[in-house]
Amino acid sequence: MEHGEAAATTGKVIKCKAAISRAPGEPLVIEEIQVDPPKAWEVRIRILCTSLCHSDVTFWKMKAGPGAAFPRVLGHEAVGALESMLKKSRKGHSVTSVLSRLWECRGCKAAKSNICSKFTCGSVSGGMPRDETSRFRDMNGQVLHHCLSVSSFTEYTVVDIAHVVKIGREIPVDKACLLSCGVSTGVGSAWKVAQVEEGSTVAIFGLGAVGLAVAAGARMQGASKIIGVDLNPEKFEIGKKFGLTDFVDPSTCGEKAVSEVIKEMTEGGADYCFECIGLASLMTDAFNSSREGWGKTVIVGVEMHGSPVCLNPYEILRGRSVMGTLFGGLKPKSDVSILAKKYLDKELDLDQFITHQVSFNDINIAFDLLLQGKSLRCLIWMDK
Amino acid sequence: MEHGEAAATTGKVIKCKAAISRAPGEPLVIEEIQVDPPKAWEVRIRILCTSLCHSDVTFWKMKAGPGAAFPRVLGHEAVGALESMLKKSRKGHSVTSVLSRLWECRGCKAAKSNICSKFTCGSVSGGMPRDETSRFRDMNGQVLHHCLSVSSFTEYTVVDIAHVVKIGREIPVDKACLLSCGVSTGVGSAWKVAQVEEGSTVAIFGLGAVGLAVAAGARMQGASKIIGVDLNPEKFEIGKKFGLTDFVDPSTCGEKAVSEVIKEMTEGGADYCFECIGLASLMTDAFNSSREGWGKTVIVGVEMHGSPVCLNPYEILRGRSVMGTLFGGLKPKSDVSILAKKYLDKELDLDQFITHQVSFNDINIAFDLLLQGKSLRCLIWMDK
Repeated sequence: MEHGEAAATTGKVIKCKAAISRAPGEPLVIEEIQVDPPKAWEVRIRILCTSLCHSDVTFWKMKAGPGAAFPRVLGHEAVGALESMLKKSRKGHSVTSVLSRLWECRGCKAAKSNICSKFTCGSVSGGMPRDETSRFRDMNGQVLHHCLSVSSFTEYTVVDIAHVVKIGREIPVDKACLLSCGVSTGVGSAWKVAQVEEGSTVAIFGLGAVGLAVAAGARMQGASKIIGVDLNPEKFEIGKKFGLTDFVDPSTCGEKAVSEVIKEMTEGGADYCFECIGLASLMTDAFNSSREGWGKTVIVGVEMHGSPVCLNPYEILRGRSVMGTLFGGLKPKSDVSILAKKYLDKELDLDQFITHQVSFNDINIAFDLLLQGKSLRCLIWMDK
Repeated sequence: MEHGEAAATTGKVIKCKAAISRAPGEPLVIEEIQVDPPKAWEVRIRILCTSLCHSDVTFWKMKAGPGAAFPRVLGHEAVGALESMLKKSRKGHSVTSVLSRLWECRGCKAAKSNICSKFTCGSVSGGMPRDETSRFRDMNGQVLHHCLSVSSFTEYTVVDIAHVVKIGREIPVDKACLLSCGVSTGVGSAWKVAQVEEGSTVAIFGLGAVGLAVAAGARMQGASKIIGVDLNPEKFEIGKKFGLTDFVDPSTCGEKAVSEVIKEMTEGGADYCFECIGLASLMTDAFNSSREGWGKTVIVGVEMHGSPVCLNPYEILRGRSVMGTLFGGLKPKSDVSILAKKYLDKELDLDQFITHQVSFNDINIAFDLLLQGKSLRCLIWMDK
């Protein structure tokens, strides 16, 4: 549909283009779909650009369990414009957020938490958060499932107002898009969760986009030594752009444990350690690399095998702590704008995360690039 | 020896009475021993009163490992007077501290740590912290080992200045004695480590003296619900004196996990959970009882079987954290005096911890009472 028609669509079903995930691991199919009008507390959004995050790939591959729901409209990092704003002054855009803020529960009201007790993290069941039903159907009338309460691989989506963040037009939409999930999670983990301090030492396990975003956040906070740990030595050069000062490739440590190497590099252990892969054994390594007295280990990765993380309680007694949060501890409605301002003020560099850009029709290329480890973030433009 | 002789002892060996632990688990033997004069950075102290802590029992029972050192002078909770002060105005007393403060290392200088990187916790090897040698011999010249850099089951001991805290005479010596280890550890865990807030909910696993001290600390901080968890139902009545408002006996929970019961009692989980026994499985229970968003679990007990604590990393991601410290996160040289003042200001009740008192000659009764679970703290008076 054309942009000019937007005002006429209010309250009506919109037909538009979407990329449908019809079966686990199979390429997405661009089809025309039907998008219902929003119900109470919901808004319909025209997506401007979206990007591909590892969690999309996780849901795309999922063959069983409550998170496996096909056919589905994936995507949860995006910037768009409210349908109701399309003919108006366009004073701002909206960033979708997998994390909701209802401001009704203890979680939302608490200064120290960013987790809504009612909606928790975006619904994995494939419906809208309030009534668990879908707003999407294909042209044969088959229901299409939502993804993490966002679903951005479509020209139009419907999102609960709890999952929308308003941002100003000063920040370019592609940079704002990065702030919807992965990059914010990494930056927030260093900024809000660990509260990295000036002059401190940091060790980051796993240098994907989230791990590199932790580095960017640690640099923003003034850390003096930022050590990256990754099996791919090419990541050091990439990581330097985000603030890495040192690098450890575990495969070259010989008989020494990575934690021993990091303890030697930091005079006893890093002040802040981050696990950004999602492996229980690596979480233990990160913990063992933290210094006694005040070493903090932040769990950022989602453990991929359902394994418990096992720690030596005596090392906890010696002043170490372990913590974690979703979305980097950020309260999306307020903190995403703060990060946008830090970008504009050149305190936080987001440009380096965008390694590739494709048009919506080429969305499967974005999957290929991420699966091959070639991209950090591939921007997908809806109208290009 | 008589008190009046003290001034004449400076620089000389003192002969005095001590309770010697000669073999694992055997009753202490009161004997005359020889106490060397202090070396550089050390002071000799006349013990006024001491109390028995579980860690003494641990060392007393120990049959193997670096901590098993016999014959030995046990004891590490004590108040005494500096030898050099015995003929002077006696303006203050000294509390021994298992935790050292050298103020030389990063650990001592950091506001956020109470762990000295150089001396760490009192030496377990049985020597003085700087030169690892002993200041004690029996009358046959056999070396007697120290305990945790304190050794208070003797009329005179030698302690490194890093392990001594000066306190005013306003606080009675028996109450001050409690502040040298166990009670401070519990109170500090609620006050300094967890930073329990007014109106918050607290769950304490294990209601020995340290667990009850956590309750006292949580009450001091204004917690509104303080749940005790213990297999002995009599602990609820005892615990009420320290601030407990609720009680869970895990043996009466049926098929429900303790964590489920606590989550029901606290609308989703306690804000602060404390493990005060030293069992890895109970640490996991405590963690599982904490609420999402901001639940903190503090490890207070020393794990007794060397087992790792295993946690579900997804529950960490949902905003939970785990932390621990020695000596309740207190910096002894400054914080013990603050707790003494809180006692004098009636913000912190220490009186209820002293359940028994014996004379030094009856020190084995203190062991019996603690082993039978009858005492919280048994004060041992040197001159009674």
